[in-house]
Amino acid sequence: MVCQDSTYRILYRDVDQMGVLYYSRYLDLFEMGRTEWARSQGFSYRDMEEVLGLMLPVTEAHCRYRDSLRFDEVAVVRTTIAAWSRTTIRYAFEVFEQESQRLCATGEVELACLTRENPRPHALPEAFLAIMRRVAADKEGRKRA
Amino acid sequence: MVCQDSTYRILYRDVDQMGVLYYSRYLDLFEMGRTEWARSQGFSYRDMEEVLGLMLPVTEAHCRYRDSLRFDEVAVVRTTIAAWSRTTIRYAFEVFEQESQRLCATGEVELACLTRENPRPHALPEAFLAIMRRVAADKEGRKRA
Amino acid sequence: MVCQDSTYRILYRDVDQMGVLYYSRYLDLFEMGRTEWARSQGFSYRDMEEVLGLMLPVTEAHCRYRDSLRFDEVAVVRTTIAAWSRTTIRYAFEVFEQESQRLCATGEVELACLTRENPRPHALPEAFLAIMRRVAADKEGRKRA
Amino acid sequence: MVCQDSTYRILYRDVDQMGVLYYSRYLDLFEMGRTEWARSQGFSYRDMEEVLGLMLPVTEAHCRYRDSLRFDEVAVVRTTIAAWSRTTIRYAFEVFEQESQRLCATGEVELACLTRENPRPHALPEAFLAIMRRVAADKEGRKRA
Repeated sequence: MVCQDSTYRILYRDVDQMGVLYYSRYLDLFEMGRTEWARSQGFSYRDMEEVLGLMLPVTEAHCRYRDSLRFDEVAVVRTTIAAWSRTTIRYAFEVFEQESQRLCATGEVELACLTRENPRPHALPEAFLAIMRRVAADKEGRKRA
Repeated sequence: MVCQDSTYRILYRDVDQMGVLYYSRYLDLFEMGRTEWARSQGFSYRDMEEVLGLMLPVTEAHCRYRDSLRFDEVAVVRTTIAAWSRTTIRYAFEVFEQESQRLCATGEVELACLTRENPRPHALPEAFLAIMRRVAADKEGRKRA
Repeated sequence: MVCQDSTYRILYRDVDQMGVLYYSRYLDLFEMGRTEWARSQGFSYRDMEEVLGLMLPVTEAHCRYRDSLRFDEVAVVRTTIAAWSRTTIRYAFEVFEQESQRLCATGEVELACLTRENPRPHALPEAFLAIMRRVAADKEGRKRA
Repeated sequence: MVCQDSTYRILYRDVDQMGVLYYSRYLDLFEMGRTEWARSQGFSYRDMEEVLGLMLPVTEAHCRYRDSLRFDEVAVVRTTIAAWSRTTIRYAFEVFEQESQRLCATGEVELACLTRENPRPHALPEAFLAIMRRVAADKEGRKRA
């Protein structure tokens, strides 16, 4: 339950003339990863904006590139929670090529919860914080096991 | 005054593994072209949305690809008005490579004016229609000359 | 066998500030559609380039926009063959929103087969032409049925 | 000579439904910045690939987001060299909004020089290393001044 794998097949539009996935596209994969992660936990980003009037802009992104992904290969994005507070969340990502399982990139992205109108910091939705607590408890449980 | 040239230098991110500008990027260039065209006529898309509460979604796009643009080359987008009505506008584009002046693509994009809330058709802003009339008169004048 | 459905969930990165899928992204969806179509017929674009030394640049693209796709909705791209010759292929696409089945866009893309080095027209790979003939026969069969 | 400013006007395609420049686009701006920086120093990335058979893939990217850029605003990307070795180069970037001069993001990108065929580490081109030495000397000079 703590980690979530999402897949994406690399299109021609995603690679550059070196024939490999362009470096900023990994951040797009990270977005796919964290949206799928939230959905797998029963939480919808869309509702957060539309129903709760909150948004989650990125405050920091980091990516380390280790190997390349090519046209028609399938990227697997493995998403976990690296850290969280009442108003922020930090995701960690690993990107693999599906067939060979070679590790292509690792990264982290931090987001902060803001009100949508007149943006200012706001607590993450309670449903989201409940997921964080459950995930953290799960981590603790695994450490003790 | 009738046509407007905008330039964009092709980045690594814009080309695919054939080493040429990816086909959907031409539509991005067309957006640059029509925004610059409007600005050159004293009209701001941004104001239209924010001040007038209108939007201009694309209803049709067409592109014919003739030659390729490569990394580090400069694309020149030449924008003109192909047709217009009280609620729609149709732009025509030619994309050249700056140095050789070779023609790389031609295209057309049609947009329709809608209200931003509860979208339904709406007349283009009067300031915009005034530009259309001026441009059309200019065209007529050139035909007679 | 004649038509192929591919799906893609709309990311935040894909929508513009009107909150809808940006118009050039439909051409990216079309690429996904035609690559998946070819794969479903047992043909790999990747092999064509790497093994056969051929490429398939787009010569013409057209899209008519009918309705919008929003963040987190799933686009279904339905791909069929509209026409083909010994050196060209023309795909037709319909894009639906998965849940409501509303039609959001229709389009066509034509590609021409070229040699990769010193690009000049070349017959499509025999394996690809065999698929075209099978699909065309299938169409004929359906017309007669 | 040490720093270089490049500008880019934000298109509709670049913003997301929060109405601000999408987070991965900053990495695209960084590419524009470092390409322009190299050109301003008399060095062409294109030649490096085509003439010297070398390439410069990104090995690490980092971005801290401070404020947002909106549609039609002009981004100014300020590029400097943060560090370099015989086979790697690390650029630092600041992104401002042109009119207000507000700082929107800071970042760093590291690239490593590889041979294009059978990629393995290779010294940066001598012309490029000469620029690095000149820039470093310039920095020293400014420190002493």
